[in-house]
Amino acid sequence: QLRTTTTVATCRDFTEDRLWLNGVEVDAGQPRLQACLREVRRLARKRRGDDAAAPLSLSYKVHVASENNFPTAAGLASSASGYACLVSALARLYSVEGELSEVARRGSGSACRSMLGGFVQWQRGERPDGRDSVAQQLQPETHWPELSVLVLVVSGEKKAVGSTAGMQTSVDTSPLLKYRAEVVVPERMTRMARCIRDRDFETFGQLTMQDSNQFHATCLDTFPPIFYLNDVSQRIIALAHRFNAHHGRTKVGQPLPHGPVVGTVPLSPCPCSQVAYTFDAGPNAVIFMLEDTVDEFVEVVRRSFPPASNGDQFLRGRPVGTAVLPEELVSAVVVDPAPGAIHYILHTKVWGGRGTDPSAPCCPLTHLLSPQPGPGPQLLDDPSQHLLGPDGLPCRSA
Amino acid sequence: QLRTTTTVATCRDFTEDRLWLNGVEVDAGQPRLQACLREVRRLARKRRGDDAAAPLSLSYKVHVASENNFPTAAGLASSASGYACLVSALARLYSVEGELSEVARRGSGSACRSMLGGFVQWQRGERPDGRDSVAQQLQPETHWPELSVLVLVVSGEKKAVGSTAGMQTSVDTSPLLKYRAEVVVPERMTRMARCIRDRDFETFGQLTMQDSNQFHATCLDTFPPIFYLNDVSQRIIALAHRFNAHHGRTKVGQPLPHGPVVGTVPLSPCPCSQVAYTFDAGPNAVIFMLEDTVDEFVEVVRRSFPPASNGDQFLRGRPVGTAVLPEELVSAVVVDPAPGAIHYILHTKVWGGRGTDPSAPCCPLTHLLSPQPGPGPQLLDDPSQHLLGPDGLPCRSA
Repeated sequence: QLRTTTTVATCRDFTEDRLWLNGVEVDAGQPRLQACLREVRRLARKRRGDDAAAPLSLSYKVHVASENNFPTAAGLASSASGYACLVSALARLYSVEGELSEVARRGSGSACRSMLGGFVQWQRGERPDGRDSVAQQLQPETHWPELSVLVLVVSGEKKAVGSTAGMQTSVDTSPLLKYRAEVVVPERMTRMARCIRDRDFETFGQLTMQDSNQFHATCLDTFPPIFYLNDVSQRIIALAHRFNAHHGRTKVGQPLPHGPVVGTVPLSPCPCSQVAYTFDAGPNAVIFMLEDTVDEFVEVVRRSFPPASNGDQFLRGRPVGTAVLPEELVSAVVVDPAPGAIHYILHTKVWGGRGTDPSAPCCPLTHLLSPQPGPGPQLLDDPSQHLLGPDGLPCRSA
Repeated sequence: QLRTTTTVATCRDFTEDRLWLNGVEVDAGQPRLQACLREVRRLARKRRGDDAAAPLSLSYKVHVASENNFPTAAGLASSASGYACLVSALARLYSVEGELSEVARRGSGSACRSMLGGFVQWQRGERPDGRDSVAQQLQPETHWPELSVLVLVVSGEKKAVGSTAGMQTSVDTSPLLKYRAEVVVPERMTRMARCIRDRDFETFGQLTMQDSNQFHATCLDTFPPIFYLNDVSQRIIALAHRFNAHHGRTKVGQPLPHGPVVGTVPLSPCPCSQVAYTFDAGPNAVIFMLEDTVDEFVEVVRRSFPPASNGDQFLRGRPVGTAVLPEELVSAVVVDPAPGAIHYILHTKVWGGRGTDPSAPCCPLTHLLSPQPGPGPQLLDDPSQHLLGPDGLPCRSA
């Protein structure tokens, strides 16, 4: 499991705040780190009232050591889990309890979501200072264990647009984004929370797909336009609709009338979401489905996008069983295969999405309301796992 | 020039309405034809009042012969110019004058636009029966002769989605389309009319591009989504923005800050529309520019999409001069060429767009407000060009 581990320590003898990231000391004066620190101290002060005799003085400097077991681009700043973990550790240090996602949000927008596990809703909030833009847990991690995720990694993906730059341009230039943010997203957010509560995959799937499409529509309405979906993404979308339509036909026992189309492929209206795609700021697809659909859909993907080489690295992550596809499914769903278009498939249970601020909802709904990796921040009682030694310095410094 | 020629005749001896399309007799009872006929007669009756002695009785049957000098898919019904021509001929037959675009609209939505030449605005109208959804001429054909059009025909295009089916699905499922129709289009229509009046290519171009993008955004917001743009369309869009940005830099004398991006290509904000793209229900690009830009941009397209074979059929339509590209333009604009991706370039002066009903604005603004081919319907006085002989039968029947 991907995770961040953080140890914080404070001592009257520390002469300055210090920060080690993955064993390398970096500048502890960075504004986001200091903002988190300041805010946790403020809450601690508020909690203690005038108890000036508190043994752990709030004026002491802190040492922080943080490690990720996954590659990071730019240290703490790029990592939602980094700030979530830091704030959890600081809160424990200063004995602050309660709602901390608003604090973590000062480090990284999406960190507020990582303060919680399970199904988390990130609320847009009303206040201009963003203080009420916080996350809340809707359902615990154990609520919907059948929900599975396949990430289809598209081959030859080039570097994507930075999401923050693109988002600001969208806000500045897209009339449709404004309407989406003010009218569409709030209503869909409520419906999505209800689907998750009821474990209603049908509606969850349809909302997920519609909302991903609308997010990319606002990217296209940006000027100059932003395209994250490419031809392979479009093929994946068409495949998902054909798969759903086929199962819809199977279930209702008769063919549905041909309706709208994706690209050049006629599709049936979709009364049946077996699989639901969502796309982030790039061409890779994230596909939700229930556990009992995984084996079959993976085989459909393998037939539609035959692996380029011998394919031994095509399936990654959690194990997938074999499936024998019925002939009528193959002929209805697997059309026009594109060898090598998918680099690999990652099978997982959770999808954290990217950190995007819902106050400018330039992201699909599933990023605001999505299954989070794991149970949320955990305390490690075992001192052997601490990253700072009794001297307040990293145990394994570089 | 592409055109439709229609002859109508009436006689007390005719026993039934008859219709010949391109020399082949077809059913004259088709509802759209009869609706046009009924409406022209109604106007004629209204005009004559109670003059029952009119020599040309309104109760006589009619014979109609119509020919296109271009291939048609489904006869009169598929052809805006066919209905426009029919209604013009009937109006002449019955001596009806004045505004006839509302009549033509009963034949084909976009026929109302073809009743006029030059720059035509197709108004959405307010009435539920569509009677006020008519076209009006904003400027004559001669108003802006410098305006030129290149159609970039994308290779390997498959059959597109029928625009009517897609439109209905969009109306039914896209929240963004509703907002576009009610809020965005009316305001843009007014601005567009002003740009044309002032021959302001700058603003005309920007509006054209933004509106094309927004149209395709609503297609993507349709469920299931509709994709008309493919990877080659996206490349053309990126190319147009790079070309405009380069000329923007040249004009203001210094580089602009890098702003938003298309795909993976950084773009400058576009203060300078040298060329403006619009896309219909398919991947082919229609590119507007002023005459003095044509030679240079054609050469840029040729370098960016090198012709697949010897390229002798690459340029079609009006003649194009040669251009020598400055080295800094090539290096800034021609990146990552895609040989064979463009099938051919059509150079023309006008672009009629597709027929789409503005009451459901599932089309780019340039289809509602666009330079029309030629001067509009013309009377052919030369009897040798008539399609029906003195006996009321086709001169050259099949």
